[in-house]
Amino acid sequence: MKKIILSLMVISATAISFSASAQFAKPEDALKYRKASLTVMGTHFARMGAMVQGKVPFDAKSAADNAEIVANMAKLPWAAFGEGTDVGDTKAKPEIWKQNAKFKEAAEKLQVESVKLAAAAKTGKEDAFKAAFSATAGTCKSCHDDFKAK
Amino acid sequence: MKKIILSLMVISATAISFSASAQFAKPEDALKYRKASLTVMGTHFARMGAMVQGKVPFDAKSAADNAEIVANMAKLPWAAFGEGTDVGDTKAKPEIWKQNAKFKEAAEKLQVESVKLAAAAKTGKEDAFKAAFSATAGTCKSCHDDFKAK
Repeated sequence: MKKIILSLMVISATAISFSASAQFAKPEDALKYRKASLTVMGTHFARMGAMVQGKVPFDAKSAADNAEIVANMAKLPWAAFGEGTDVGDTKAKPEIWKQNAKFKEAAEKLQVESVKLAAAAKTGKEDAFKAAFSATAGTCKSCHDDFKAK
Repeated sequence: MKKIILSLMVISATAISFSASAQFAKPEDALKYRKASLTVMGTHFARMGAMVQGKVPFDAKSAADNAEIVANMAKLPWAAFGEGTDVGDTKAKPEIWKQNAKFKEAAEKLQVESVKLAAAAKTGKEDAFKAAFSATAGTCKSCHDDFKAK
């Protein structure tokens, strides 16, 4: 029995190392990358948020530019949540891996909404932009509620 | 003539400082953002590098995907090198602000070459991709040599 468990551990460790190695040499690299991509996305999202909240005046070009960056960035972080990257200095909840299909679906929702937001922002219409911003913000919140530790 | 140039310099300096304060509340935020955007860019650049160096086999789709991400990311870090962000935990050399026009030119070169790289990668031709990769890598190195502390 011990032998079987040990074998499974070796296979599992190999699988983890392979999956991580396909894109990231070490779990730390994956953590650094996903934090970085979320920081960039969050920065541009917050600039739109400031307009939506009336802290800065609505500027159609800024809205369109920031929304396009967010739509591009929204594709990136998820590949860095591979098996074996639930370690180290992270707020990622274990649910990301336990309910991985649900996590992937949440990530997909953000991508869909952020593309709609970029399209809405391009129209230059403040109302359309604000509505699409709220829908996108909802996908951030929902995913953070379920999968990010406070 | 001198007066005009001086006025232009003042306007230009004001524009720089305005742009920094408009975009980042604190210098730390600018540092975090520029490191994050350079981390994301560097990760995808390194994936192409592994193909160019033969560490992993050439894959046209991977080359095109990574090159497109790099071309998008290459636009981002520079706005976070505003006046007043030469402080804290940074490898940014003072030359960035002392020779700001030269720095901006270096950043511009990367953006031009990374767009060419994305176009070359899209052709699916390994030779064109490798040549464009080298040209882009040269702009990274040149800027790091001049503006990034070891």
